[in-house]
Amino acid sequence: MKIKPLLDRVLIKTEDAEETTKSGIVLAAKSVEKPQIARVIAVGPGGEVDGKEIKMYLKEGDRVISAKYSGTEVKVDGEEYTIVKQSDILAVVE
Amino acid sequence: MKIKPLLDRVLIKTEDAEETTKSGIVLAAKSVEKPQIARVIAVGPGGEVDGKEIKMYLKEGDRVISAKYSGTEVKVDGEEYTIVKQSDILAVVE
Amino acid sequence: MKIKPLLDRVLIKTEDAEETTKSGIVLAAKSVEKPQIARVIAVGPGGEVDGKEIKMYLKEGDRVISAKYSGTEVKVDGEEYTIVKQSDILAVVE
Amino acid sequence: MKIKPLLDRVLIKTEDAEETTKSGIVLAAKSVEKPQIARVIAVGPGGEVDGKEIKMYLKEGDRVISAKYSGTEVKVDGEEYTIVKQSDILAVVE
Amino acid sequence: MKIKPLLDRVLIKTEDAEETTKSGIVLAAKSVEKPQIARVIAVGPGGEVDGKEIKMYLKEGDRVISAKYSGTEVKVDGEEYTIVKQSDILAVVE
Amino acid sequence: MKIKPLLDRVLIKTEDAEETTKSGIVLAAKSVEKPQIARVIAVGPGGEVDGKEIKMYLKEGDRVISAKYSGTEVKVDGEEYTIVKQSDILAVVE
Amino acid sequence: MKIKPLLDRVLIKTEDAEETTKSGIVLAAKSVEKPQIARVIAVGPGGEVDGKEIKMYLKEGDRVISAKYSGTEVKVDGEEYTIVKQSDILAVVE
Repeated sequence: MKIKPLLDRVLIKTEDAEETTKSGIVLAAKSVEKPQIARVIAVGPGGEVDGKEIKMYLKEGDRVISAKYSGTEVKVDGEEYTIVKQSDILAVVE
Repeated sequence: MKIKPLLDRVLIKTEDAEETTKSGIVLAAKSVEKPQIARVIAVGPGGEVDGKEIKMYLKEGDRVISAKYSGTEVKVDGEEYTIVKQSDILAVVE
Repeated sequence: MKIKPLLDRVLIKTEDAEETTKSGIVLAAKSVEKPQIARVIAVGPGGEVDGKEIKMYLKEGDRVISAKYSGTEVKVDGEEYTIVKQSDILAVVE
Repeated sequence: MKIKPLLDRVLIKTEDAEETTKSGIVLAAKSVEKPQIARVIAVGPGGEVDGKEIKMYLKEGDRVISAKYSGTEVKVDGEEYTIVKQSDILAVVE
Repeated sequence: MKIKPLLDRVLIKTEDAEETTKSGIVLAAKSVEKPQIARVIAVGPGGEVDGKEIKMYLKEGDRVISAKYSGTEVKVDGEEYTIVKQSDILAVVE
Repeated sequence: MKIKPLLDRVLIKTEDAEETTKSGIVLAAKSVEKPQIARVIAVGPGGEVDGKEIKMYLKEGDRVISAKYSGTEVKVDGEEYTIVKQSDILAVVE
Repeated sequence: MKIKPLLDRVLIKTEDAEETTKSGIVLAAKSVEKPQIARVIAVGPGGEVDGKEIKMYLKEGDRVISAKYSGTEVKVDGEEYTIVKQSDILAVVE
């Protein structure tokens, strides 16, 4: 099953957390706050939203930080995704 | 009885859940979260909404994901439907 | 007494519920959820609302589905009506 | 003392309720819900409100139905009135 | 100390209540609801507010009715005033 | 440390209260309500805010009345200030 | 990992508090309220936001005061940052 976002929406998937503290100790996923980093899985075509033409500047594969509590969580084929408006993506992580 | 949505509204019907987990076990509808997937039953004609001309890009038969809690549930002839604005449809599923 | 809606407003009257289940059994009004179907009794003339020119596409006698909790209920000459904006009518039923 | 509404405002006075049920029995004011019918006492001059030019289509003496809970109640010379925006008047009653 | 309202604001002062009932009995201020009548003390110069040019139509000395709970109460030199936007003044009383 | 407000913001500092009642008795700061009078310490450069060009009409040293609860309180070098939008300043006091 | 804010967003990092009272005594971080001063770490490219072209006037290294409770806190590589819209930055501190 393939999810194709409409208009200015973006399908993202939160990354599994595996974080190394500054001192170099790897913490298990349970003991750390999940970073708010997600991978862009699919990008809508853009178009007119509320009377304004929206261009998409994100692309598949981008690693991004999204606003907390934004978007709609969906579960398809046992996998959890979030669909957010492109404007709710705050930053790209490189 | 036939329901004809007005303006930019879309009549959708939630699909019955029958989901296969990744490992291939078929779960009965009770034990899984209903996926938020619905079938488009009828599409309004579009037109001017809040002073903006809306074109309809969804069509009858599309399988879609809608925003949770959006729209109005209606029960006609014993069947449950939801009427949503086209802009509350987040993605098409193929 | 005659109620003449102003601007883009529509006077509707909820229909009495008498519904047949799929298996053909007629249920009394008490045991079924009232369908959200109403009859259009009178239609305002349209005109400029919030700086936008509104044309009326509904007409007297239409059977419609309105958004729940929208509009204002009025009781005139012992009859209950609802006055809604035309844009709160979701669909026409045929 | 004379109250002159400003801009798009209308001064209305709720009518005393004296209602006849369908079977013809006159009910005293206490036992019936007050109908939401009011008499227009004075009409503002219209003019520019929120950057839009408003024309007044109501006139002194009109009997109208107003949206519940809209407007501001004022008591002047022992009489109770309500000042509402013209757009909060839903219908004219004839 | 002189208070000069900015833009579309108006400085008003609630009048002391001394009201005569219809039967002609003068009630002391304590036993009656304060009428919502105020005297205009000073009027701002108008100008551009939220991108719209506002002209002032109220003038010093006008007796007005303001929307309840609107404006900001200020106490200067032991006197209580309210500063409201001109658009929160509902009517002029003559 | 010098605070330079951005855009249409104004840095103000509430004045110490020392108020004389009408009868001429000077009350200590504790027993009177603090007047809502503040001194303008710094004024932003103005510019485009929400697509509208804002001109600054307040200047350093003005004594002003601000809307209650507006703005953000900041403490810098042990002194308390408030940063408000110019449009939240209701009046100038002379 | 490098965080690149999108559109009109700015990445800031709250400064460690080390404040000297007026009398010259240095207080430890625990005993003082954290000043609301942050350092700008990265600035988005600006561009069209809600149909308006936004130019960025902040630059990396600026010390700024932001509105309380604005923005989204992110934790990346063990460091805490906040991503805010440029318009939520109230003032520059020099």
